[in-house]
Amino acid sequence: MKPDKHYLSENCQAVSEVLQRVGDKWTVLVVKILGNGPMRFNELKRTIDGISQRMLTLTLRALERDGLVTRTVYPSVPPRVEYELTSLGRSLIAPVSALAMWAIDHRGAIHGARTKFDARESTKTAKSDAA
Amino acid sequence: MKPDKHYLSENCQAVSEVLQRVGDKWTVLVVKILGNGPMRFNELKRTIDGISQRMLTLTLRALERDGLVTRTVYPSVPPRVEYELTSLGRSLIAPVSALAMWAIDHRGAIHGARTKFDARESTKTAKSDAA
Repeated sequence: MKPDKHYLSENCQAVSEVLQRVGDKWTVLVVKILGNGPMRFNELKRTIDGISQRMLTLTLRALERDGLVTRTVYPSVPPRVEYELTSLGRSLIAPVSALAMWAIDHRGAIHGARTKFDARESTKTAKSDAA
Repeated sequence: MKPDKHYLSENCQAVSEVLQRVGDKWTVLVVKILGNGPMRFNELKRTIDGISQRMLTLTLRALERDGLVTRTVYPSVPPRVEYELTSLGRSLIAPVSALAMWAIDHRGAIHGARTKFDARESTKTAKSDAA
């Protein structure tokens, strides 16, 4: 899938603007998980290791603003609030899942590369310190 | 493409760690553009609207550390420095392009949703101010 340079540079601003939002790691994870169906706030929080209450609130609000998620309040006691992907949000599942799967499949290779790079850099620093 | 909840929660930390890096908008754009073939620093800078010298340097260095890009110095005068995707980096083109294409195709819908959301929120604020 070769990108066309002209097309790309024309759309660069638009792409980076949208990616800044949907490329965010918490957004990616929330979209992927809501792909299973509607969920309540606390279910989402339990499913996503390491997300804070505040960060999940911000992420869901941004997704709602972008038209990717709907927030529905059911008048029970206590009120039940459910989050669900819109059809626009569902169209994001496939590309987002592909990226998440790539991350899972290649994290070993990435970690290996980092360890090698850092070892090489610290050798360079040691050499220039000794010089 | 439904994500499996158990699989996902087990891998959540790993995914978010890797996505934090490769989901970054400048990383996505650099990978997409280097998909065309090796490029020099200034070519990359010209192709990516709005990226600063410093941000491109940081992005390329992080990609090199992650084993996604190689940096080759050719001993010409002045020295020519070229950046090229590794095979690991090339494996990232397809998922990254899919996400970028989604961003291009749906940016109109996202902008529309934002405008509606912001109008609704400002109405809410005006109402609660009046109350």
